[in-house]
Amino acid sequence: MTRYQHLANILAQRIEQGLYRHGEKLPSVRALSQEHGVSISTVQQAYQMLENLQLITPQPRSGYFIAPRKAQPPVPAMSRPAQRPVEVTQWDQVLTLLDARNDKSITALGGGSPDVTQPTLKPLWKEMSRLVQHNGGDIFNYDELPGRRELREQIARLMLDNGAVVTADDIVVTSGCHAALSIALLSVCKPGDIIAVESPSFYGTMQLLRGFDIKAIEIPTDPQTGISIEALEMALEQWPIKGVILVPNCNNPLGFIMPDARKRAVLALAQRYDIAIFEDDIYGELANDYPRPRTIKSWDIDGRVLLCSSFTKTVAPGLRVGWIAPGRYHDRVLHMKYAASGTNVPTTQLAVAAFIREGHYHRHLRRMRQIYHSNMETWTCWVREYFPCGICVTRPQGGFLLWVELPEHVDMVCVARQLCRLKIQVAPGSLFSASGKYRNCLRLNCALPPTEQHRAVVEQLGEAVRIAME
Amino acid sequence: MTRYQHLANILAQRIEQGLYRHGEKLPSVRALSQEHGVSISTVQQAYQMLENLQLITPQPRSGYFIAPRKAQPPVPAMSRPAQRPVEVTQWDQVLTLLDARNDKSITALGGGSPDVTQPTLKPLWKEMSRLVQHNGGDIFNYDELPGRRELREQIARLMLDNGAVVTADDIVVTSGCHAALSIALLSVCKPGDIIAVESPSFYGTMQLLRGFDIKAIEIPTDPQTGISIEALEMALEQWPIKGVILVPNCNNPLGFIMPDARKRAVLALAQRYDIAIFEDDIYGELANDYPRPRTIKSWDIDGRVLLCSSFTKTVAPGLRVGWIAPGRYHDRVLHMKYAASGTNVPTTQLAVAAFIREGHYHRHLRRMRQIYHSNMETWTCWVREYFPCGICVTRPQGGFLLWVELPEHVDMVCVARQLCRLKIQVAPGSLFSASGKYRNCLRLNCALPPTEQHRAVVEQLGEAVRIAME
Repeated sequence: MTRYQHLANILAQRIEQGLYRHGEKLPSVRALSQEHGVSISTVQQAYQMLENLQLITPQPRSGYFIAPRKAQPPVPAMSRPAQRPVEVTQWDQVLTLLDARNDKSITALGGGSPDVTQPTLKPLWKEMSRLVQHNGGDIFNYDELPGRRELREQIARLMLDNGAVVTADDIVVTSGCHAALSIALLSVCKPGDIIAVESPSFYGTMQLLRGFDIKAIEIPTDPQTGISIEALEMALEQWPIKGVILVPNCNNPLGFIMPDARKRAVLALAQRYDIAIFEDDIYGELANDYPRPRTIKSWDIDGRVLLCSSFTKTVAPGLRVGWIAPGRYHDRVLHMKYAASGTNVPTTQLAVAAFIREGHYHRHLRRMRQIYHSNMETWTCWVREYFPCGICVTRPQGGFLLWVELPEHVDMVCVARQLCRLKIQVAPGSLFSASGKYRNCLRLNCALPPTEQHRAVVEQLGEAVRIAME
Repeated sequence: MTRYQHLANILAQRIEQGLYRHGEKLPSVRALSQEHGVSISTVQQAYQMLENLQLITPQPRSGYFIAPRKAQPPVPAMSRPAQRPVEVTQWDQVLTLLDARNDKSITALGGGSPDVTQPTLKPLWKEMSRLVQHNGGDIFNYDELPGRRELREQIARLMLDNGAVVTADDIVVTSGCHAALSIALLSVCKPGDIIAVESPSFYGTMQLLRGFDIKAIEIPTDPQTGISIEALEMALEQWPIKGVILVPNCNNPLGFIMPDARKRAVLALAQRYDIAIFEDDIYGELANDYPRPRTIKSWDIDGRVLLCSSFTKTVAPGLRVGWIAPGRYHDRVLHMKYAASGTNVPTTQLAVAAFIREGHYHRHLRRMRQIYHSNMETWTCWVREYFPCGICVTRPQGGFLLWVELPEHVDMVCVARQLCRLKIQVAPGSLFSASGKYRNCLRLNCALPPTEQHRAVVEQLGEAVRIAME
């Protein structure tokens, strides 16, 4: 982050916190320059940025004033999905979404791609290039079935940060978090089984369930504290549920971090009803606050939590390096890894291992946490500015995904189709429900840098939503 | 291949064909040098190599003579497996085999690793290094779900060589052939289904069946012409079989190439009984003869053949680049790819695409076909020399795998365990049967260069077998 971005963030936070009020005059450029020990031009750039965000307005010969603005939209209420097991559908819509990911002419706000253009990734590309040039053919042979030990050792060390004490032998490397979840599910479930999921829930995970003929039961989920323990317990009473899939840290799509007490409550329930927990921690390292939040796995004493994660969001999707810490299911997971996907690419694993070992990973992560946090604030401002009144917006505690709820009668599936013609792609909320809910919601990817072009896209989005609301 | 190796091969073939007989004197070094237009020292090196292979013996001041030798061991007879669906077991033994693959102190003759040390692979490493250094982050984002188009186009072109006319849109890239078979099986079968397999049959494929709770019915298979059409038909009459897995070209482990008429007969049967064919063509490009053999897919008019292949054996396992040409199952396969494994690593795909496009692939393949062919002959000679009489040995028409059948009472599972202590690993035949057959067989990987050390290993192997036979 540059100096002026840093300063602009500080000022934006102060405005957000109400330290300056509507119509109030901001400090002079000179005063700010002295207060923060930065140059005049840095302050000017920061003010320009806030002006672009429509947080402040300049008045000729008087300085900058706080712009009149709308109130912060409320957070969506707890979801109320149908509480019975259903079969997942929507594959065609997901496929359309995936296709757009690789179309350069489309502004893709519907997928979950991270920003892979930052210079802190350079040591990784260098390491990969070095590995490829100096190998004796060795790294192009078959990988070890559980994955490269060098990498598993680094992953075990990283996991200490989330409170889980595991060794390299407890880790099974997979081709990304998607394969991790797939192998974990195949290791525990059979076709016809029922799995509890948060509602809304990541569309990719839902398609895994569909692929393996597993039924989903959607559990009411609070956009700030996560899955309802009470509703989950009722479902466990009523149905022969095999396990629950949770994204407790920087949830996709809602952005919450479950409070520790609720994480432990879910684990206690899982123990009581003897079910497995599939804990998807893929966004966990991207929490706004440092140190990062704990995982449910960190309290798991009887090995029933299969923690699935990957370097897809924190480093790069194209590496396809993920992992499972499968607890008591280790042997079964190893066999299902062999059956379902075979071994992985050694090169990317070794490159990531070196990237972590030499400190580049933590440096990169620090940077990305700040960038995503800052991006999310900007995108949230834009949504507030350009979307009509009457919407609800999440307050993500990490990651880079924003969930917007529109009034009941708005059909985002239709709106999304219209937006396609404008080369803008968003994920309609219906993809995140097995029972066809959330057609009035959308998920936005805010990983992209807040450029003028992206501001214009959000403006177009807001306009399309406004028309749909009328 | 160097000149002397080439010359040695020519001479070895002449000896094999009986052009020179036992005790007969070979041409003088000078005469051969003139006949083949090579230097004296080249001829001397070639003779030295044949002497090492114990094909010829030097007699002081008289020149080289054909060595007394054992008769060529016969080919194993058609297999007679139990003809009923059974559940696959043997996972623990396969796991042990896989573990040894990455232990440098072990001479691993049990796995299927190709030779990845040849200089013709260098352009591939260079291309990968170039891609990684000059990317703008782009190739580290998510891959297209069906795989990179650049690669799919090259694969479609390659497939013309096996007679199959497909386009890039008919190809789904996978993480190696293992994932290809896994996705193909998951797309067609449900737990409890029955799949027909050749007998013996590759242990990896058998573990897929076990992983997905699919039963295997082993069909008698001839080591020179492949699966028995008659026996397959009887099985189809008797059981609700969903499909048949075949390795018709350079079969693993038997090395045969099914004659075209038999390939068509199997396809006709599949049409009549409306079953799918999973055609594993992973060794197909490594046939001794050029042009390469046709695939069953090449006659497939109603899209029931799911051709699975990869660059694992022809280029390098660590690339994890394979594919499916799924015919009528395309959409289902795409969904199961998303569910079971997600997207793949773009870098290795793009590197392979460039490797093919620029002609390096065919250059490398030409070299590997010669090398493997020559290695197989040497290893076969060694087996003949060092193994006791009473064995049967396959005559592979391509690839680099040799199947040896010992007398019924020999337990190769025991022998393999003893060999482990000598740091030699072979694959006991029992891994290749779902019903516990072939304990008296072993599969040898002959991809390794025929060095003095490997000769000594085969000698140890022969000795261990001899003791077990007594």
